Amino acid sequence: MPLNHTQNNRLLERAAALVPGNGGVYGHMNIAKLAPGSPQFYSHGEGARIWDVDGNSYIDFMCGWGPIILGRANGRVDAAARREQESGDCLNGPTPRMVELAEELRSLVDHADWSIFVKNGTDATTVCGMVARAATERRALLVARGAYHGSAPWATPSLVGTTTEERANLITYEFNDLESVARAFESAGDDVAGVVVSPHKHDAGFDQEDVDPAFARGLRDLCDRSGAALILDDVRCGLRLSLNGSWGPLGVEPDLSAWGKALANGYAIYAVLGREKFYDAASRIFVTGSFWYSGVAMAAALETVSIMREEDGVEKIRRAGQEFRDGLEAQAADHGFAVNMTGPVQIPYMSFKGDRDRRLLNRFVELGLENGVFLHPAHNWFLSTAHTPEVIEEALVATGRAFAALAEAGTLKPVATEVS
Amino acid sequence: MPLNHTQNNRLLERAAALVPGNGGVYGHMNIAKLAPGSPQFYSHGEGARIWDVDGNSYIDFMCGWGPIILGRANGRVDAAARREQESGDCLNGPTPRMVELAEELRSLVDHADWSIFVKNGTDATTVCGMVARAATERRALLVARGAYHGSAPWATPSLVGTTTEERANLITYEFNDLESVARAFESAGDDVAGVVVSPHKHDAGFDQEDVDPAFARGLRDLCDRSGAALILDDVRCGLRLSLNGSWGPLGVEPDLSAWGKALANGYAIYAVLGREKFYDAASRIFVTGSFWYSGVAMAAALETVSIMREEDGVEKIRRAGQEFRDGLEAQAADHGFAVNMTGPVQIPYMSFKGDRDRRLLNRFVELGLENGVFLHPAHNWFLSTAHTPEVIEEALVATGRAFAALAEAGTLKPVATEVS
Repeated sequence: MPLNHTQNNRLLERAAALVPGNGGVYGHMNIAKLAPGSPQFYSHGEGARIWDVDGNSYIDFMCGWGPIILGRANGRVDAAARREQESGDCLNGPTPRMVELAEELRSLVDHADWSIFVKNGTDATTVCGMVARAATERRALLVARGAYHGSAPWATPSLVGTTTEERANLITYEFNDLESVARAFESAGDDVAGVVVSPHKHDAGFDQEDVDPAFARGLRDLCDRSGAALILDDVRCGLRLSLNGSWGPLGVEPDLSAWGKALANGYAIYAVLGREKFYDAASRIFVTGSFWYSGVAMAAALETVSIMREEDGVEKIRRAGQEFRDGLEAQAADHGFAVNMTGPVQIPYMSFKGDRDRRLLNRFVELGLENGVFLHPAHNWFLSTAHTPEVIEEALVATGRAFAALAEAGTLKPVATEVS
Repeated sequence: MPLNHTQNNRLLERAAALVPGNGGVYGHMNIAKLAPGSPQFYSHGEGARIWDVDGNSYIDFMCGWGPIILGRANGRVDAAARREQESGDCLNGPTPRMVELAEELRSLVDHADWSIFVKNGTDATTVCGMVARAATERRALLVARGAYHGSAPWATPSLVGTTTEERANLITYEFNDLESVARAFESAGDDVAGVVVSPHKHDAGFDQEDVDPAFARGLRDLCDRSGAALILDDVRCGLRLSLNGSWGPLGVEPDLSAWGKALANGYAIYAVLGREKFYDAASRIFVTGSFWYSGVAMAAALETVSIMREEDGVEKIRRAGQEFRDGLEAQAADHGFAVNMTGPVQIPYMSFKGDRDRRLLNRFVELGLENGVFLHPAHNWFLSTAHTPEVIEEALVATGRAFAALAEAGTLKPVATEVS
């Protein structure tokens, strides 16, 4: 049964000429990018649940597209933030929280000799590029074709409003294809400042792809030989896959890494972490922002990291993710659907085999919404420590109903059968 | 008497290899940019006062370099933010606060037919440039020589870590010199996407300069004739000089404007405001951020704007600024110093005539700190509605002592006398 979106639609009408982005919202949260029937406006959240403005509630597998790692309204994180807010968030310099957080990250992440705190993932990746260029006095940045590293003109997936010159020093390679990286190095001559890479391939709109450890080691080697900086864009994955950076378990250390979004469980803070060797270059660039020293998000980050350590949050989320993945696979098989489950289970994505226009997936996600589970048809999902076994069980009841409804829909089922 | 900085110095030691930026803090709040004797780390703030980590307190005339417009720990703003936080700040889309804030800004600012909310001043100016380029399908942005519009590679005052290409489409003009703008237009041929301008000249390290209304009108005219967008960078001045944008009182409407820092009295939110004509272009660019939809800063902004309206905050701050300026001028004259008081009184700056190396000013600011008033030797200052007549009176006692001590210091006085 379609959801009631009365209040939502009223807000959309008010937003129509008032907020750019096709009559709703600019950017990645615009409902045009979601499944049909998705709400645009929300009222509140708690744990693994969110409520839209019409009172529909969902078990949420997007976690704000990543920032929420301990569930929403986490009492400890919010209390730490509130204490800092009561002192004052916007002083004439940092509070001791900045030093404490940089120390905590140094103890947590092997390559984190130093930290710079910023407000957007785009800030973090941009600063990594600037540090690499300052350190090497070279210009080129190698980026994987199709990878997302932010929405500044040099990085945004759309070219509208950008200039050719702003992207002049980007050279693309293919993820997991070391030969293509070697070719990119060659084409740049001696001018490679850095190689930007995601921990695994998580391009929106596609199945995910794990990193080949040999590829990661090969990148490290190419960077070492050329003097270029290896830059890990851990904005989407940082903290969820490993507290030591997403390539920590592989034993491949980047020179610089961009962290966020989950660092403070929903408070706005990102970090650039770097090796000592790059400290001088990081000190010579001029980057800043009025809110980059704000203590509230730093206090929230300290508490988030503490909880992740204490509760072994990574393992907790991994187990929940495995449970969810296994359940979805079993349900798909039961209903005769062939699916691709890709990516780490903490940051999973599911697609239907052969469903190139995502007709099946869009409908499945829509049916999920109607049954109380929030998934995304064209972007990886996120789990949090609030996705307890009970929550996963409840979510699987919802997805089971969605699969069943999908299977019953004669117009759609054959498509899947034909192509699978 | 020099201030006690024991705790501050311990934090600086811990930060030394841990936080880039010359052993302290990256960016504009690094103490190397302040007067000698300035603290780097703070503990709390209330109203017009801040406390450093050693318990020294100051009447603050920097307001976090602008964000604080109603004084720190404003009860109403903090309560509005807390209410929104309790619902959830980081959902899967905006809350109704986004629509309410865009409506409020439309009613407040004549040219604000629409809004995009972002997290940094740099985001706001960058998005303005992207919208102008998308709308015009041209590349060049005209910027005043020496003006600050952010710290992204295209804008940062230091070239370290940036490439020539990233700045390839910037053409400089001289503020208040319409001829220089006309020449810049000519040199770009038909390729001017927009002209970026600050409401008045407030370049760090220099006396400020009011805008010549004929210059503002001339820019509007040149943009109208060429089809380029007039972009007002109101990040530093917005709300303090006029609720209708800083050129509202001049009757000159920009096409796009970048707002912040004071919008939410210390909560991180900036806005791009634009005319209807640019709505389509603003909808076609792809810009986004995980925290750009967060409701807490929007709720804080709604409350901040309400209070500024109700209390006629602009006039309140103007009166306080006039009082402070008059007092400083009288004290300078009493002690035999010739000073330049420049800029709007809400965003004032004082320098000593002929004090080219700022030796006098640095010492004056240092003496101010020791007497409990926080000023900046090389950046304009900011007042807030918490700068009540009583606070200004108390601040003037401190500056009076600083002038007196400066006058007594034989080694310095003659320098000023010689050159004034």
